Amino acid sequence: MTGTATDELSLVFHALADPTRRAILSRLSSGEATAGELAEPFAMSRPAVSQHLRVLESAGLIDRNARAQWRTCTIRTEPLDDVSAWIDEHRALWTERFELLDERLRDLKQQKQDHQQDH
Amino acid sequence: MTGTATDELSLVFHALADPTRRAILSRLSSGEATAGELAEPFAMSRPAVSQHLRVLESAGLIDRNARAQWRTCTIRTEPLDDVSAWIDEHRALWTERFELLDERLRDLKQQKQDHQQDH
Repeated sequence: MTGTATDELSLVFHALADPTRRAILSRLSSGEATAGELAEPFAMSRPAVSQHLRVLESAGLIDRNARAQWRTCTIRTEPLDDVSAWIDEHRALWTERFELLDERLRDLKQQKQDHQQDH
Repeated sequence: MTGTATDELSLVFHALADPTRRAILSRLSSGEATAGELAEPFAMSRPAVSQHLRVLESAGLIDRNARAQWRTCTIRTEPLDDVSAWIDEHRALWTERFELLDERLRDLKQQKQDHQQDH
C-alpha cells in the first residue's frame, strides 16, 4: 500500500491482506474474544497481536469494547459489504464483456455458415 | 502486509489495497489496454505504473500479453472469486450468529410474557 492510500476501501483490503488478521476475523466470526484469547493460537508476541488488532480496528473490521476490566473484540461486517460490492461490480462488468464477446463469436460463426451455404 | 504473507489470497488483497491499482482494474474491466493507455489518467511516472502492473500481475489479477510490439494487459477475475468466497463465508457466519442471537432474544421475550401472564 502506498503512503497516500488511506481511503476506507484501501484500509479494509490492506487489513485483509494478512493471514493472521484473516484468522483473527475468522475466530471473531464465532463470537467476541479478548486480545489474550486471540493471541493463543498464534506463535507471536502480545504486542504483535495488538498491532494486528489496531490495523483491523482502523479498517473498521473490529470493535474493541472495554467491559469491566476485560477489553473484548467483536467483528464488524459492514466494511466487508463495501469490499463485496466492489468485487461484484468488477466481476459483473467482466462477465458482461465475455457475454458480448460470445455474442460476437456466435455472429461470426453464423456468418461463416451462411457464407459456406452460399458456395 | 508482513514479509511472510505471500499466500495467494494475501497477494490479491494487497494488490486491491491501492486506489490506483483498483482504478487500473476498473479500466481493464472494459477491455484490454497498453501500459501507456493505463498510465494516461494518472499523474504518475511510467515506472510507477509498471510497478503497480507488476503487483497486479503477481496477484494473478492481470495478464500481460506480448502481441506484436504492443504489450497489452487484460484483467483476470478468478482471484476475485476467491476473495468473494472468503468474504461471503465470513458474512454468512456472522449473519448466522445474529440470527441465533435474535432467536435467543425472542425466547427471552416469550419467557418474560409467560411470566407476566402468570402474575
